Amino acid sequence: MPISANDTKRKSWLTVHENSDFPIQNIPFGVFLTKENVVTVGTRIGDYAIDLGALQQMNYFSGIELTDDMFMQDTLNDFISDGKKTWRLVRNRIADIFDENNPKLKDNDKHKDIVIFNITDVEMQLPVLIGDYTDFYSSKEHATNMGKMYRDETNALLPNWSHIPVGYHGRSSTIIPSGIPVHRPLGQSLPSGETTPAIGPSRSVDFELETAFITTDANIMGEMIPISEAEDYIFGMVMMNDWTSRDILKWEYMPLGPFLSKNFATSISPWIVTMDALEPFKVPGPKQFPSPLPYLQQKGKHSFDIHLDVAIQPENGKANVVSQTNFKHLYWTMNQQLVHHASSGCRINSGDMMGSGAISGPTKENYASMLELTWGGKNPIKLSDGTERKFINDYDTVIMTGHCKNSQVRIGFGEISSKLLPPFVRK
Amino acid sequence: MPISANDTKRKSWLTVHENSDFPIQNIPFGVFLTKENVVTVGTRIGDYAIDLGALQQMNYFSGIELTDDMFMQDTLNDFISDGKKTWRLVRNRIADIFDENNPKLKDNDKHKDIVIFNITDVEMQLPVLIGDYTDFYSSKEHATNMGKMYRDETNALLPNWSHIPVGYHGRSSTIIPSGIPVHRPLGQSLPSGETTPAIGPSRSVDFELETAFITTDANIMGEMIPISEAEDYIFGMVMMNDWTSRDILKWEYMPLGPFLSKNFATSISPWIVTMDALEPFKVPGPKQFPSPLPYLQQKGKHSFDIHLDVAIQPENGKANVVSQTNFKHLYWTMNQQLVHHASSGCRINSGDMMGSGAISGPTKENYASMLELTWGGKNPIKLSDGTERKFINDYDTVIMTGHCKNSQVRIGFGEISSKLLPPFVRK
Repeated sequence: MPISANDTKRKSWLTVHENSDFPIQNIPFGVFLTKENVVTVGTRIGDYAIDLGALQQMNYFSGIELTDDMFMQDTLNDFISDGKKTWRLVRNRIADIFDENNPKLKDNDKHKDIVIFNITDVEMQLPVLIGDYTDFYSSKEHATNMGKMYRDETNALLPNWSHIPVGYHGRSSTIIPSGIPVHRPLGQSLPSGETTPAIGPSRSVDFELETAFITTDANIMGEMIPISEAEDYIFGMVMMNDWTSRDILKWEYMPLGPFLSKNFATSISPWIVTMDALEPFKVPGPKQFPSPLPYLQQKGKHSFDIHLDVAIQPENGKANVVSQTNFKHLYWTMNQQLVHHASSGCRINSGDMMGSGAISGPTKENYASMLELTWGGKNPIKLSDGTERKFINDYDTVIMTGHCKNSQVRIGFGEISSKLLPPFVRK
Repeated sequence: MPISANDTKRKSWLTVHENSDFPIQNIPFGVFLTKENVVTVGTRIGDYAIDLGALQQMNYFSGIELTDDMFMQDTLNDFISDGKKTWRLVRNRIADIFDENNPKLKDNDKHKDIVIFNITDVEMQLPVLIGDYTDFYSSKEHATNMGKMYRDETNALLPNWSHIPVGYHGRSSTIIPSGIPVHRPLGQSLPSGETTPAIGPSRSVDFELETAFITTDANIMGEMIPISEAEDYIFGMVMMNDWTSRDILKWEYMPLGPFLSKNFATSISPWIVTMDALEPFKVPGPKQFPSPLPYLQQKGKHSFDIHLDVAIQPENGKANVVSQTNFKHLYWTMNQQLVHHASSGCRINSGDMMGSGAISGPTKENYASMLELTWGGKNPIKLSDGTERKFINDYDTVIMTGHCKNSQVRIGFGEISSKLLPPFVRK
């Protein structure tokens, strides 16, 4: 089935600014709350949020097989369960409804009033109920940097890393959408030079700039996923800030991996950009050597050219870009991550989320965490207001943005913007 | 409020065999499917499953504030959300309904026909929708044994272990109730003497004998839980088989912890035994030295005297008990696990499940995994049919049972019985 929604010649009758992340060629999916306290599945074009539940009720999706309340829900899980064919039909239809040459909705002021909201008038929710959340560790540069700082300067990359898309299970209950502030966590750490730990506010709260993908139901328990089918089970992508406490991490992570150092918060961008929308930006990933085992081998272009950056905005200050990187630096592809995850027979459900790991690139400007950018705090970053940062300060806002761009179209993710607050005080 | 359901003098008008795990003093909660394809919340007395949804419809819970469909659901999450007071009221009421001196249901054959099922006529389901699953590592003996075999014989316990209830996030999507078979996982491992890995069926599938507890909503994001309140947030306990592939684990676990080696299956017993029912079996745990940090300090009895054992039953053979241990050997208590988990501000929800880690005790007979019992396969176990086991063979059934007993009452968990099948073959 052609992805007619990707037609770069198409224009919308809704205003879309030149540098918008959300032209009519994007059509991401999300969930929002209106001022009337209605929750609905929606999409976004330019600076407008569009109520897909209302569109469905008014028969704009006739001819597409959907359950009656498909979009009048507070998560996308059921829609995602319906599979790639349905996602494509719906996205193509939305493109058609908002095409400047289609008068049906354009000329129906009553319907437009019901369906279209200014983006500033809605509150974005988590787009899916995330059953299980996994985070990978797929940037060779990030894994190497971590190994150098936490383990062994000369032998930084562990032997398994080049054979396995290394990953671990994360915490679903604290995944939050952009806009929700995060409290500085308390936790145990080992003060420098001491042999017994202390508990207190983390002294080194960090971001990790990542992306994540959302899956559909992919297998039954016990069943592997052939890599040739992996793409069919990936609905779309979001940006992700994998908030991390470095001092808690260092003390707790041996031998079972990150726990409290990561589970206090994970922020994501609220619009899921579909893999269909990202299709024009496929690129080859880094050459993989040694050759992966056969179940992970794939030919062709399976990475994506996605520009990513992070800015730190102090309270009442300006945003300072501190890192610029690109998804294409990742060593392991999303297909490989998914296939490896299911290779044990682990069941993959609709709404599972899998993070990339910090997306550091080859140069220092590409490092995707403060730990790497300041090399463990040794080289603080100077901000435009004259202050310095080793890690994130209370009341700083961390802003992540991401987009793809070619000569014809820009497809973006919007942003994750989340403020770090002091530790929570119980009332 | 008194726990009248614990009255050891009470007898039920339902037959309960002398060594039953489910006297009227137990009253666990679970979810079952009837032959008429109805799913309901239920309890168990003797060898009878009792439909709480039907009891509620027929007004047997009048006077207790419950939503109308509280028990006509396929999970216990909403009931668990209602909190300890409601759990206790309902459990006390059930004890009253089935008390031999209460004729109300006893003498109503029509109602009895609707409410009571032979346990063999129902199919037990997962009792809760498990949002997040965490597994701890709280047996000092198990952590020491693992350290000796995987890392360093002379320095087996890592420095953080005595200060932190070490844990990691697990996979919810593959938690299954007793009775569901498990396929031997495929996975990468490093063959002995090689430097590059291979993929194939795991050669060392193991059990870990554990218990797990189920939580209710305990905090908001950012908020710690004071240890004095921890008990209020624990609904009850199940037994758990933390299936583990040792060869996959060894190759993958550095540096981010267990992943595919654990996520192919986790089996639990289907009846949640409430903390109220276990109250008479409270005992002190091991002395904790060094003293935990203040947020983990508690006085009094916070462990439980629960006998646990594991048997291996070969296809067409007899069950051979291979390990006998006790919950009271665990170093860290459930209260400490929960408080530590939330200390970062991690949100704890109704239906989260937290495993104990393998419950090994001080002697070899207490070791809670084949890895420890056979010391890495060096000392195979001889079964009654003359065959030997280093790990679990295809078509073996692993059976775990657990119960508490004093001179007045026996409160048990029933069993987890799950067969290991050969690797899944895609049709």
